[in-house]
Amino acid sequence: MYITCITFSKKKNCWKVYSTVTYLAEDDFLKNDIRVNPNLDSLGALGDIGWYCIHAILWVHDYEFPNTVTAFGNPEYHDSGVILSCGACLNWKTDGKVATFCCSFLSNLCMDIIALGTKGNFLDNSKWAERAVGCGPEPGVFKIATDMPRERLMIQEFGRLVAGIRSGEPKENKWPIISRKTQLIIDAVVASIKNGFVPVKVVY
Amino acid sequence: MYITCITFSKKKNCWKVYSTVTYLAEDDFLKNDIRVNPNLDSLGALGDIGWYCIHAILWVHDYEFPNTVTAFGNPEYHDSGVILSCGACLNWKTDGKVATFCCSFLSNLCMDIIALGTKGNFLDNSKWAERAVGCGPEPGVFKIATDMPRERLMIQEFGRLVAGIRSGEPKENKWPIISRKTQLIIDAVVASIKNGFVPVKVVY
Repeated sequence: MYITCITFSKKKNCWKVYSTVTYLAEDDFLKNDIRVNPNLDSLGALGDIGWYCIHAILWVHDYEFPNTVTAFGNPEYHDSGVILSCGACLNWKTDGKVATFCCSFLSNLCMDIIALGTKGNFLDNSKWAERAVGCGPEPGVFKIATDMPRERLMIQEFGRLVAGIRSGEPKENKWPIISRKTQLIIDAVVASIKNGFVPVKVVY
Repeated sequence: MYITCITFSKKKNCWKVYSTVTYLAEDDFLKNDIRVNPNLDSLGALGDIGWYCIHAILWVHDYEFPNTVTAFGNPEYHDSGVILSCGACLNWKTDGKVATFCCSFLSNLCMDIIALGTKGNFLDNSKWAERAVGCGPEPGVFKIATDMPRERLMIQEFGRLVAGIRSGEPKENKWPIISRKTQLIIDAVVASIKNGFVPVKVVY
């Protein structure tokens, strides 16, 4: 996931995360892509890009599993019945901790995450400007340098995991746990939509 | 309201708006400010800064009134019972049109609005970068020049309205309508919270 606005003080009281992934599907996509075919990727935009939104939210919250998931009203559907856009609110038991996401095949390309913490969001310790005509400092650009391009790091990690399986190393649970948590939330979004946008309790 | 990320193609299919206003209240504020006193500003953060979030959402949607308002779970309260942080989802009858907001006295200073449209969000017509390693163009800074500082424009407008009343000019309905729409949504958020975060139908 390409993340903008990552600057954020990770605090106990990080209470609000908003993530979104959208892109504008072209006619050919809406006619022929597997993502709009209920016999192939029946979860549509939710399964394709909602996955990234939910994973990003879990990442910000140190993979703490939420308590309930409530889908937003007004999802949009393909003629095939597959979801083209939807969103949901996730709640944790902790006071004030909440996240929302939205995903769509019907909106301009956008990949974004915003996390609001007690002492940071886009900025750390932002303050009112003099005479309260704005707030500052201005958001800056933070670059995280890596030894290799991140795509190469991803393939390297994938190779390492596969090699570990082949050589009989103890099974790693990190990625399966993250994937399962993400999938359970996706299933809860579907259940909430099917039941009239009610809160759905989730348990990991 | 100080708005960042205003770049946005206003299209019929603008389907998602997210707005937030937060600031971190200090101890003195949380003890003595009228905004946490149920006998003075009993709507707390919702009445103080949630107002700006809702107004911003209405502004993006050309003041079209929503159909339902559903508060998010996990609001936070002052010992006095006044809301310190909360949020809600607004739905319109139009397919896919949805907005969310959150407001808090318990989070770092933040004033933000994001609007996602069919052909624009932070950017117009953004595209995948080569080999899909990101998207572009990069967001830029858009400055809207005014003849006078905006605070002065606000006072000028206020003075104009008062002078109009004194000289018996036909009453203007623009601001009263906007204020009433905003207040009705605030009342619906409170009703939704009091009734267990159910969708509350709103009518203007």
